[in-house]
Amino acid sequence: MIKQPPKGMRDLLPEEMIKRNYVFDIIKSVFIKYGFDPLESPSVEYSEVLEGKYGEEEKLIYKFKDKGGRDLALRYDLTVPLSRIIAANPNLNKPFKRFQISRVWRYDRPGKGRYKEFWQCDVDVVGSDSILADAEIIAVTIEIMEDLGFKDYTVRLNNRKILNSILESVGVPEKKYNEVLISIDKLERIGIEGVKKELREKELSPKQINGLSSFFDISGNNQQILNKLKKTLKNGKGEEGLNEMYELVSYLDKMGLPKKYKIMVSLARGLDYYTGPTFETVLNGVEMGSVSGGGRFDKLIGKFSGTDIPATGTSIGIERIIDVMKELNFDLPKQKTLTKVLVVNVDESTLQDCIKLASFLRKNNVSCQFNLSGKKFGKQIKYADSLGIQYLAIIGKEELKQNKVTLKDMVTGKQRKVNKEALLKIVS
Amino acid sequence: MIKQPPKGMRDLLPEEMIKRNYVFDIIKSVFIKYGFDPLESPSVEYSEVLEGKYGEEEKLIYKFKDKGGRDLALRYDLTVPLSRIIAANPNLNKPFKRFQISRVWRYDRPGKGRYKEFWQCDVDVVGSDSILADAEIIAVTIEIMEDLGFKDYTVRLNNRKILNSILESVGVPEKKYNEVLISIDKLERIGIEGVKKELREKELSPKQINGLSSFFDISGNNQQILNKLKKTLKNGKGEEGLNEMYELVSYLDKMGLPKKYKIMVSLARGLDYYTGPTFETVLNGVEMGSVSGGGRFDKLIGKFSGTDIPATGTSIGIERIIDVMKELNFDLPKQKTLTKVLVVNVDESTLQDCIKLASFLRKNNVSCQFNLSGKKFGKQIKYADSLGIQYLAIIGKEELKQNKVTLKDMVTGKQRKVNKEALLKIVS
Repeated sequence: MIKQPPKGMRDLLPEEMIKRNYVFDIIKSVFIKYGFDPLESPSVEYSEVLEGKYGEEEKLIYKFKDKGGRDLALRYDLTVPLSRIIAANPNLNKPFKRFQISRVWRYDRPGKGRYKEFWQCDVDVVGSDSILADAEIIAVTIEIMEDLGFKDYTVRLNNRKILNSILESVGVPEKKYNEVLISIDKLERIGIEGVKKELREKELSPKQINGLSSFFDISGNNQQILNKLKKTLKNGKGEEGLNEMYELVSYLDKMGLPKKYKIMVSLARGLDYYTGPTFETVLNGVEMGSVSGGGRFDKLIGKFSGTDIPATGTSIGIERIIDVMKELNFDLPKQKTLTKVLVVNVDESTLQDCIKLASFLRKNNVSCQFNLSGKKFGKQIKYADSLGIQYLAIIGKEELKQNKVTLKDMVTGKQRKVNKEALLKIVS
Repeated sequence: MIKQPPKGMRDLLPEEMIKRNYVFDIIKSVFIKYGFDPLESPSVEYSEVLEGKYGEEEKLIYKFKDKGGRDLALRYDLTVPLSRIIAANPNLNKPFKRFQISRVWRYDRPGKGRYKEFWQCDVDVVGSDSILADAEIIAVTIEIMEDLGFKDYTVRLNNRKILNSILESVGVPEKKYNEVLISIDKLERIGIEGVKKELREKELSPKQINGLSSFFDISGNNQQILNKLKKTLKNGKGEEGLNEMYELVSYLDKMGLPKKYKIMVSLARGLDYYTGPTFETVLNGVEMGSVSGGGRFDKLIGKFSGTDIPATGTSIGIERIIDVMKELNFDLPKQKTLTKVLVVNVDESTLQDCIKLASFLRKNNVSCQFNLSGKKFGKQIKYADSLGIQYLAIIGKEELKQNKVTLKDMVTGKQRKVNKEALLKIVS
């Protein structure tokens, strides 16, 4: 008899769901404030829709055939399905601003903060080529981090055009871009010497390697980094990327956001489909990959519609965020139930009155339970205690006579007799 | 280039999602009021978990192998996975009350209100063998129907034990129970003569057929039906079922619910796993199958844990409900966005001030957008109009000089100049 979910997938019990929903609700409310609207794509796509979009990672897609022999796949992210939907619905008003918090599947080795089924939390602007749209995506990210209570984090900014121009300027051949970027992306993890070693193995010349590392050594504040890059990157793509970066930083400054965004020219972001600004969020001092990642993908929708439609967005790494919030003892809800009141019958004779009181509370939008399984008095109290229900509303013969209820607050331990209107006031 | 989702699956655009979330929120708030808590099971299960649980319908399960050769399946309903989870977590406090609103997959022919991927909306009480738990499930169902605005509906009540006892009393052999129940379940659709014809084809004797039809002819109110049955069903199971039914109806009466529950002894409900009370909701005068269905399943969890744990619950047919609400012109939200305010810049020179105003509104929890794609004034207005955004907050040079905003209400057509605090008050 199998009792467990498939490896790398999870049963999320109420205790866990209450924490997750708390986090999701904060994120959702930021998305909505910024004018993004909900959308859902199906979990299953024709395989063809997903193929050729993710590069190396494509091997992690769950594929299968249905009974009609069609090639299907479980959705690997929320961005490619969104792009298909945009192509299928050419009359959507643009810019089209949508968020989606939904499951994706990856046939990955399970590990810390990594699951085979997990939730992604995406927000995108479709149909605007303005850098203002990228700025808004970053503003959403920062507001979410602040609202969740994170203090020490950095939103790293880069631009594919700058990165490509750097590679070009030191003479890396275009067919090597991808493998070189993979090494560069590891800069933080393996250090500059580690990256150099990998690049030697990938047969870059010492001159190319030194050229690259001089770029990744650039330090200073955003303005200083921009100035230094401006002196070196004079080819077309580089200038375009720098102008976009300049514009992006200046919009962010104007939005009055906390200054937690920082240019980092070694930021590569794995996915094939980015074309302009890229960004990710890291938690400083925490051993964990990025907790958000995104960028502009102006060429992806065109793969479905035939005509390019500019788009930019980010994915909030909700699973990692929740794991870190637990690890760092953030103030997450601790109870195992949303129930606020347990209506307790002292014995069978008052059950009927308990049912009535529960109906009254529910009519007034108070979440409550009563004794559904013939528990004795003491066991009802224990039930409330282990679930973390704050209030007991006890009805015995004495209370019935006085037309009152004994209200016990399990947090303070205090109890007193009240009528039902007073009870409602306290527990609402 | 494929632009469409797989057949029978759907892309749910914001306009649709806003309607769905409106309905889901109503349902969720009833679940929570009644003390049910959220739980999520994975979308994917080991095939073995689902096999042998659904009878005939098992052929509709999506099955596949993962890269490690394991037999997996997309979840077919939310009840069987819940049962597995209960078995895997023996220390959960009982009664365990959970709800789940989540996707399931069936390889079914798509049709009206029927999809290959759709949402189920389940609520269950686990660990109580009291009929009070069944009554609570029905109370939840009725409250949801009322809160959604349905007037003319019936919650049909029956009990597997009564049904089995009826079959026994007329001498149907046990191995024929299932096929006979399938015919009986069609009573409403094909009429008593249709059912009789099917039963003849299934080789029941005229005496057996007449015996059965005399039960399904029983009319009157709940009390009258109970009394008539009491006279005829004197075998052990029948009495047990009748006592449960009596108890159920008396709890429902005591709960003070609208009297929309009605005993119907021909109600069979397809699923194999029901053991006691069964129930379903139908909309009177609407061509549509049941919009909720459930019952007690005291033997299902035991298939995973080895020890039986009593349980009862229902599934709200949310897809059908939404389809009917649209058909009957219920008052569902009509807008394509949750955005309340579009901040409009008259020309490029005031964009910066629009960004500031948007930041101010968002800080105060007002959902708003500003011009992300360089639209001219007229096109911004058109954008707001076609999305159904109620308010325009227009900033031109004149407004800037006066430190005011022109606020236009798109519903009333009225507009006036206000300062930003007054604006906030109106749009909040």
